[in-house]
Amino acid sequence: MTRERLAEMVQRGLVTPTGLISHGRGEAYDYLMGECSNDPALNAERAAAAHLLKARNPVVCINGNAAALDAPNLIALAKAVPAKVEVNLFHRTPERMEGIISYLESEGAEEVLGREPDRRIPGLNHDRALCTDEGIFSSDVILVPIEDGDRAEALVSMGKVVISIDLNPLSRTSRKATVSISDEMTRALENIMRFIEELRGDEEAILKILDGYSNTENRRNSIEAICDSLMAEFDEGGS
Amino acid sequence: MTRERLAEMVQRGLVTPTGLISHGRGEAYDYLMGECSNDPALNAERAAAAHLLKARNPVVCINGNAAALDAPNLIALAKAVPAKVEVNLFHRTPERMEGIISYLESEGAEEVLGREPDRRIPGLNHDRALCTDEGIFSSDVILVPIEDGDRAEALVSMGKVVISIDLNPLSRTSRKATVSISDEMTRALENIMRFIEELRGDEEAILKILDGYSNTENRRNSIEAICDSLMAEFDEGGS
Repeated sequence: MTRERLAEMVQRGLVTPTGLISHGRGEAYDYLMGECSNDPALNAERAAAAHLLKARNPVVCINGNAAALDAPNLIALAKAVPAKVEVNLFHRTPERMEGIISYLESEGAEEVLGREPDRRIPGLNHDRALCTDEGIFSSDVILVPIEDGDRAEALVSMGKVVISIDLNPLSRTSRKATVSISDEMTRALENIMRFIEELRGDEEAILKILDGYSNTENRRNSIEAICDSLMAEFDEGGS
Repeated sequence: MTRERLAEMVQRGLVTPTGLISHGRGEAYDYLMGECSNDPALNAERAAAAHLLKARNPVVCINGNAAALDAPNLIALAKAVPAKVEVNLFHRTPERMEGIISYLESEGAEEVLGREPDRRIPGLNHDRALCTDEGIFSSDVILVPIEDGDRAEALVSMGKVVISIDLNPLSRTSRKATVSISDEMTRALENIMRFIEELRGDEEAILKILDGYSNTENRRNSIEAICDSLMAEFDEGGS
């Protein structure tokens, strides 16, 4: 079903053909993880919820693949925090920007930034750098589902807390992010929303989570979880 | 470059949008393997060469993704064995069949089977079962690059030696095949051709390879190689 929806979104111009290849890479990692949120994923999702609740100006950054995969949960998370929503595209054209923003609005997003960029992310070439002052540029905590490595790195260099959702724990995005969630996007968003409700108002719990979280250690645990899942799958039914 | 070519092949109707997603899954596994042919892959490729040289009626089976990825090496391998070439599609339409066969002919294939199927593979539904008596149906050894699991299983049930090229060592295709090559297609084809030249005429070496090859053991080694590569990548630069 997801595959058919993405293929349809290519027809509508919201997703690029190379975006389909990128989605396939994600599918492979999801399969390796047994298509469930493992402990390291949940650990990162809990830290993400804590950062979002502590933020002064949190932003949820949305691209074509993310919108096509699960616009309703992206919008619901932004409302739950609450956080601003900004569209930011790797392959930016006015038509794709308008198409994706309109699509998000039709799915219930109330104010989507990105149509009229007035700032640039330092260190990025071309239109990939474009953003708004109100949103991405002045954000302190930013959630980037399915982000490219260059932009994740540039956002970290700006001093932001960057929370990535990227199934590959070894991707440049995962390596560079402050909190690297290696999980399927819909599961990640739903888990973060659940943790937000659990933690809201509990300042002590939030600080304890932020204090105890090590992203390097958590990424190592993600990789070990993949290996365990692979060997278990082979032993159980793969041989 | 590969991604752009595949995207172009979607425009031409040779590759389906879901074929792009499938390619992305392969890319992820290739990345996990360090984008090189590891020892288990070479071991399977050597066994594939031995089977192809021993075959009475070997066939190279080609679908849209395989043709788009590397038609020249598929054709070169078929000529090297020599083996027949047959096109067999998961999403079969007369236009796609004609498009892919014409494309292979334009790339130098001399006789491509599949335009006029006169047999069915038992146990498969719909048009996916269609094949020719001269080619797939009466083959004893069949090379299936990027095959779907149902068809790989059906071909094994017919008593054939099925050699798969599929980057995921846990896919249904890899589980069902007689010789499961977990390697990127171009590297696999070039390695098989090299082993064919090394082994041609050396009956003793061929029999020794076939006698000593265990596909289950080799697949386990493939998975262990992926885990080793993941942890090495994390330790070297990923952390």
